[in-house]
Amino acid sequence: MNFDFSVFLVILSVEMNFNKYPSHMQKRYFLSEDDIPRQWYNIQADIPVKPMPMLDPLTREPVTVDGLSRLFSVECSKQELNQSDRWIDIPDAVMEKYRYYRSTPLVRAYALEKAIGTRSHIYFKNESVSPIGSHKLNSALPQAYYCSVEGVTNVTTETGAGQWGAALAYAAKIFNLESAVYQVKISYEQKPYRRSIMQVFGAQVTPSPSMSTRAGKDILTRTPYHQGSLGTAISEAVELARMTHGCKYTLGSVMNHVTLHQTIIGLEAEKQMEMAGEYPDVVIGCFGGGSNFGGISFPFMRHNFTGERNTRFIAAEPAACPKLTQGKFEYDFGDEAGYTPLLPMFTLGHDFQPSNIHAGGLRYHGAGTIVSQLLKDGYMEAVDIEQLESFEAGCLFAKAEGIIPAPESCHAIAAAIRVAREYDAAGSSKTILFNLSGHGLIDMAAYDQFLAGNMK
Amino acid sequence: MNFDFSVFLVILSVEMNFNKYPSHMQKRYFLSEDDIPRQWYNIQADIPVKPMPMLDPLTREPVTVDGLSRLFSVECSKQELNQSDRWIDIPDAVMEKYRYYRSTPLVRAYALEKAIGTRSHIYFKNESVSPIGSHKLNSALPQAYYCSVEGVTNVTTETGAGQWGAALAYAAKIFNLESAVYQVKISYEQKPYRRSIMQVFGAQVTPSPSMSTRAGKDILTRTPYHQGSLGTAISEAVELARMTHGCKYTLGSVMNHVTLHQTIIGLEAEKQMEMAGEYPDVVIGCFGGGSNFGGISFPFMRHNFTGERNTRFIAAEPAACPKLTQGKFEYDFGDEAGYTPLLPMFTLGHDFQPSNIHAGGLRYHGAGTIVSQLLKDGYMEAVDIEQLESFEAGCLFAKAEGIIPAPESCHAIAAAIRVAREYDAAGSSKTILFNLSGHGLIDMAAYDQFLAGNMK
Repeated sequence: MNFDFSVFLVILSVEMNFNKYPSHMQKRYFLSEDDIPRQWYNIQADIPVKPMPMLDPLTREPVTVDGLSRLFSVECSKQELNQSDRWIDIPDAVMEKYRYYRSTPLVRAYALEKAIGTRSHIYFKNESVSPIGSHKLNSALPQAYYCSVEGVTNVTTETGAGQWGAALAYAAKIFNLESAVYQVKISYEQKPYRRSIMQVFGAQVTPSPSMSTRAGKDILTRTPYHQGSLGTAISEAVELARMTHGCKYTLGSVMNHVTLHQTIIGLEAEKQMEMAGEYPDVVIGCFGGGSNFGGISFPFMRHNFTGERNTRFIAAEPAACPKLTQGKFEYDFGDEAGYTPLLPMFTLGHDFQPSNIHAGGLRYHGAGTIVSQLLKDGYMEAVDIEQLESFEAGCLFAKAEGIIPAPESCHAIAAAIRVAREYDAAGSSKTILFNLSGHGLIDMAAYDQFLAGNMK
Repeated sequence: MNFDFSVFLVILSVEMNFNKYPSHMQKRYFLSEDDIPRQWYNIQADIPVKPMPMLDPLTREPVTVDGLSRLFSVECSKQELNQSDRWIDIPDAVMEKYRYYRSTPLVRAYALEKAIGTRSHIYFKNESVSPIGSHKLNSALPQAYYCSVEGVTNVTTETGAGQWGAALAYAAKIFNLESAVYQVKISYEQKPYRRSIMQVFGAQVTPSPSMSTRAGKDILTRTPYHQGSLGTAISEAVELARMTHGCKYTLGSVMNHVTLHQTIIGLEAEKQMEMAGEYPDVVIGCFGGGSNFGGISFPFMRHNFTGERNTRFIAAEPAACPKLTQGKFEYDFGDEAGYTPLLPMFTLGHDFQPSNIHAGGLRYHGAGTIVSQLLKDGYMEAVDIEQLESFEAGCLFAKAEGIIPAPESCHAIAAAIRVAREYDAAGSSKTILFNLSGHGLIDMAAYDQFLAGNMK
């Protein structure tokens, strides 16, 4: 049989383009399970100016893997200090569990664009479809997995709004670990459903500061009605891990290895933006300790380092906790009691007590060392968002796209709307991508307050 | 260029199979946006024994499109009585909004299978990923759309647990309709977050029975502390629709057109099961009025009608509201006050007051006419599930798969586990599919009660 192959290729190519670009305006982009990235991106290998080292709180010497692994799993400690390997393999057991909810959809926000009348294209990566309702599971799974293969039996952690705690509780359950979670007291009281979710997964949940640790007792002695912060909860969790045989500490943001795990978000988004035939001019994430922001940003930022792209990266932090725009760049502790390594970071001081905004996940005094260095060196920007503006943006988004966003994610939405309007005013149109880090279904009391006009 | 085409085809085919079947055990199956079904399946065209007609409550004559459309949109009224067209086109505007969350994933429940040690394969269709958190949006969108194109300005409805109300509130918002929702009083009090969700979407929410309608006043006069039921809420919503110019009534289950819209679930699942290389031996749905059950079941059941397949269909109802296993098959009203047409159905009586189980969406006295006829004629089965068994199953599922199921969906999970264990005991293995109609993140108070050992 004779055959003109070139003609066949043209036909095949037309057919493939037809399948690739549907006749309607495609709304969501998924990756097949085989296309989900199998490696995380380690920005430490590429970052132009390396951050200053973390220091041991006692010796003031740079921390080592040995030192860190007294607190964290060995593998996470290695990842924390790894400045040479650009790509880190995701273990098979973690990949298997990622497939329970990944890829998460990249969504074109047509309805939001219409609602604000912008000429820009707005996309969001929807991490709220994780079973736990947020991006936090991306790091909870590997942290629990590494502990389990290293013979650890118990894990402990802190949680603010409860999203990280819920993720860790589930991850611990599936990797056969016991878990103890210290939840910021104000969130424990404001968001009882998140406590229940952790308990369904078998976690022991304690409001922090508590009388169960020396750090907690000291804080309560100084400030009897302390409402808790991520700083107090970290102190208590770290102390429990140190005092308990076979117990390791895990955490939900700030540290390099947590942000490393979250790069799965941006790596997927990069492939999905390509499916949509676009590349983002602006990438936006809300900002607590930096792992959500870094997760969506870093994989795109590597193309800025090479000069191939010139994308803007914007961290959206709450005006009530403005470490990036008003903090000092200095060595500070990650927790209230001073148990953690000293980190070179933008900080409001480790005893900073933020007001009780509903975005519990953003009430943290400092920024991770990598994002701090990147901000210092001009590779990213930061904006402050007032709580009221964040909920106005969240309700606008909900009415348009149908998804009620987490109070944390509302900050990213507000920043995206601001940016789109700025470009509109300047007569230009851009491609804007933000991370919808979680849904707000457990945060309806905050929306009630907003709708009743009682929010400041 | 000469080329042996047959060799190329073999290579191409190997390549395609490689892409189709990943090396790992695939967890989730999605359809591309172009493969989402564009028609609903109307079982009325195929059902072997047609149900007896619905009767006008005043004349006791069979209802007509004219009669029904005084209450519902004209298009829904036509669909309600359409016994001839097997396939009904989904309007483009509804398809556009379906693409916001559809296809929903078909998921192989590997972890659940392992947890119960079954040899059967268990799949679930995950409707909980809808932005509203349940399958209800599938019918809310077309009902609101048809109202909007027919010049209606206001819609009204009832809701139990609040899942339907939340879906209708969002659908009304995007099609520019005002909405008023009567929520069963016990759910309004037990589940305040769902009320808040409806309010974020702009709905007016009233606990039923209320003093705002004659039906509500009459019920409260007879039973001053009446906790409400879907029957009371329907009465109030219907009365408001009848008394208000430009206002139509919408509802979340029971009627034929609602179940018609829900067949998108089963039609997608059929294609997705094919992607998984399996066909279900058993299909299971929880049962309130029948639309969730019919939605997953009817597209598969049509192959039983032709003799091509011999699938089992199991409706899982709460033991506290056992209309299918203990109700009478007779003409009864769909509501407490007797405003709706008389329906030939399995019923516990339209004044039945179910106990306050947490599965608010299943607390309805009757079953839709089609499912009633199918049960009567032996095309499906029904099982009763005690509340405690349902939550045991729900927690087992949550710990394995990471998703906290709605109390309604827990009934389907419990039935699936029962069936798998029965087959294991008999030494056989089957393919079991159930519908995970929604998540339980708004129902954590119920889980609290279960975990505390206070659930009966």
